[in-house]
Amino acid sequence: MSPAAPHLRLHAPIVLPCDPDCSVLRDAVVDVVADGRIAYCGPATEAPEAPEGTPVRRCSGILLPGLVNAHAHTPMTPLRGIGSDLPLPRWLREAIWPAEAKLRPEDIGAGMLLGSVEMLRHGVTTSTEMYFHGEHMAEAVLAAGSRMLFAAGILDVPGWDWRKLVDEQSAWIDADGRFLGPAHRIELCYGPHSAYALPPEALALVGEEAQRRDALVHIHVAEHAEEDAEQRAAHGSVPRMLDHLGVLDGRVAMAHAVHLDDEDIALLAAKGVGVAHCPGSNAKLASGTARLVDLLRAGIPVGLGTDGPASNDDLDVLEEARLAALLARLSTADSSALTAAQALLLATRGSADALGRDDIGALEPGRWADIVHVAVDDPAFATGLAVPDDQVLANLIWAAGSRLVRDVWVAGEQVVADGESTRVDRAGAQAAVRAVSARLHG
Amino acid sequence: MSPAAPHLRLHAPIVLPCDPDCSVLRDAVVDVVADGRIAYCGPATEAPEAPEGTPVRRCSGILLPGLVNAHAHTPMTPLRGIGSDLPLPRWLREAIWPAEAKLRPEDIGAGMLLGSVEMLRHGVTTSTEMYFHGEHMAEAVLAAGSRMLFAAGILDVPGWDWRKLVDEQSAWIDADGRFLGPAHRIELCYGPHSAYALPPEALALVGEEAQRRDALVHIHVAEHAEEDAEQRAAHGSVPRMLDHLGVLDGRVAMAHAVHLDDEDIALLAAKGVGVAHCPGSNAKLASGTARLVDLLRAGIPVGLGTDGPASNDDLDVLEEARLAALLARLSTADSSALTAAQALLLATRGSADALGRDDIGALEPGRWADIVHVAVDDPAFATGLAVPDDQVLANLIWAAGSRLVRDVWVAGEQVVADGESTRVDRAGAQAAVRAVSARLHG
Repeated sequence: MSPAAPHLRLHAPIVLPCDPDCSVLRDAVVDVVADGRIAYCGPATEAPEAPEGTPVRRCSGILLPGLVNAHAHTPMTPLRGIGSDLPLPRWLREAIWPAEAKLRPEDIGAGMLLGSVEMLRHGVTTSTEMYFHGEHMAEAVLAAGSRMLFAAGILDVPGWDWRKLVDEQSAWIDADGRFLGPAHRIELCYGPHSAYALPPEALALVGEEAQRRDALVHIHVAEHAEEDAEQRAAHGSVPRMLDHLGVLDGRVAMAHAVHLDDEDIALLAAKGVGVAHCPGSNAKLASGTARLVDLLRAGIPVGLGTDGPASNDDLDVLEEARLAALLARLSTADSSALTAAQALLLATRGSADALGRDDIGALEPGRWADIVHVAVDDPAFATGLAVPDDQVLANLIWAAGSRLVRDVWVAGEQVVADGESTRVDRAGAQAAVRAVSARLHG
Repeated sequence: MSPAAPHLRLHAPIVLPCDPDCSVLRDAVVDVVADGRIAYCGPATEAPEAPEGTPVRRCSGILLPGLVNAHAHTPMTPLRGIGSDLPLPRWLREAIWPAEAKLRPEDIGAGMLLGSVEMLRHGVTTSTEMYFHGEHMAEAVLAAGSRMLFAAGILDVPGWDWRKLVDEQSAWIDADGRFLGPAHRIELCYGPHSAYALPPEALALVGEEAQRRDALVHIHVAEHAEEDAEQRAAHGSVPRMLDHLGVLDGRVAMAHAVHLDDEDIALLAAKGVGVAHCPGSNAKLASGTARLVDLLRAGIPVGLGTDGPASNDDLDVLEEARLAALLARLSTADSSALTAAQALLLATRGSADALGRDDIGALEPGRWADIVHVAVDDPAFATGLAVPDDQVLANLIWAAGSRLVRDVWVAGEQVVADGESTRVDRAGAQAAVRAVSARLHG
């Protein structure tokens, strides 16, 4: 058997490779080779002949790439729903920060394990995590079988030493390499919280250290109007300040980016900076709506983030895709401002592009075989699959959503079967989070 | 056994009766009497003793009233997703109207049957339907076991005679009464499409005929900015014109009501007019966002509508509740503008109030036993039920949504068990809609 011979072939009536045109392939196959990458994705009639004995899995629904969450703080699952009706400043001061202060490193692992299982059930195979205690998070991700970009949180607040946080992440990368685990499951990145939570010298240092290692810098930018107005008064704008500090010369993905002016947008486009658009979190916390259509028009790579489960609760990237389309249409007063195809691309290829990753987010030869199977035996698809391409995509985005995700593969390994994790005892993961929650409330 | 002795008792760790305070009852029961109404809803420890042999159903999750959809055109399920990326005027002219013109009366029945099954699976026990061929729709609703307010569509367009449409509905009510089917399954109402689709004398006649029969008038008002501007230029505003014509002296529920000024809002409040807020449809079609917080502050009864599955695809009222909260927060820049409790009340009691119905939308003695059981064995509720009330409600609205609806009763009869209709073969209902769709595309 040649090295390129498929290890597994998935065959489905519809395959959405999430190429830039968002093609809808009919009667198509995805071939996965033994190392977990895709060897072929295309029409069944044009597929290379598979060697005898190759397992063929017939799927009755739609195959698409694993969804990519471009911004999250997933370990916060034990805080989900606390104080959620408080105004934002009180919510942070009275609910979130006191609870976070009680989290132990192993709680972060428990929260990440449950969140990873939950995301996989929603078809989300990769998440970008700005948080702390990465070793516990990595252990959870490797147990669940998902992928993570771990952006180590870096803050300048009492009790934390930003230099130490930067040095620790640099030392980890230098010791273990930028990628950990099988099939590049984990990528180590830097997560400076924001320009308002760090002094300029910290941001500059993070930029240097990250560029030296070709590592991603993931940072909150222009989330809330008040915070952004203060930063603009002090520094011009955060994107311009980061540019002056040299940070934008490397790989950068900005989360939120709600309050950008035209000059900021032109700068992000010129520097190839990615944006993690978080429409649900930004609506729920009343932060505003990012200028998605303008960002896309400028050629900026834009993906979707759920933000943490404390602020936007269900870690559902397909729901964010739907919200992105709704809010783009509302905010431009144009009902064709964002199509279902564009919404799907944001959740897949767009997030990968925003994170500077060309190995996930699409079903293309050479990328990892992170694949989602969406069932179509549901009223959402009652009009059938023998309808025009745009109707298939509309039914997926507007009617189906993540509730119909049935099977998920990561690097060719099936990690969700019929809606449940193949690796993690969900009841146990839930019980562990319940125990943390009980202690937080105790 | 006395007539008030329970026929069925449901016992759950959490019951949300949807009283005006949105109480969260712990360890509570709902007693259903033989005619399908609720006899008791409250703490188990205070429940009247049930006669020996009363069936007791232990539910492991959360009980709440059946959700009420205050505005829909559900028979359009065979049109779901067609042309959905076109700008609004082209979508109507090139996709929707030509397809609707091909619908036969029996297609409308098939579309309504599937939509009713789908809504029940989402916990929606009642829908308000502005459409045509009510006899086919009623048959579908009675087969599915749901409830409907049938607002017979009345239009002044070529090929339609508005006088005949009004007279037919009046004759139906006079012949069969305003309520049809067992346990008031169907209420007959009038559905004058809009002020722009009918001459003033038609609106006035509908108002008179409806008031004579205490019937609801359900009408589209101020959905799109352009349409509304034309109406304002011609008539002041649509609410004021309807008031001059006497229509607002009876039961009226306005769908959409996006573009209202302060005077309109004061008028609706003074007249007790209900509003069916449709946040998803209004966002998807870029119509705008109704002034929900102002409507509620004025004391107007407000509920939630999905609109038709062609324009807002998944007939999911809990999703509309979440969207209503997101958009209220965004549009007021206040993250506490609408709580999870308020969002839940919109979807239940609020919709009932908006429709002038005091027999649905809450778990209260005397109301129909339309009950939804939401499972809690899910990451959405991993923090457990031993958390503060607001956290339970937050987890329901923000994290769970309709995906966790497991069992549904209408008038005490279980019509959904473990997520599937107990009455309708879903595969058959889907196949019937697929056949209609095939003909539309043929």
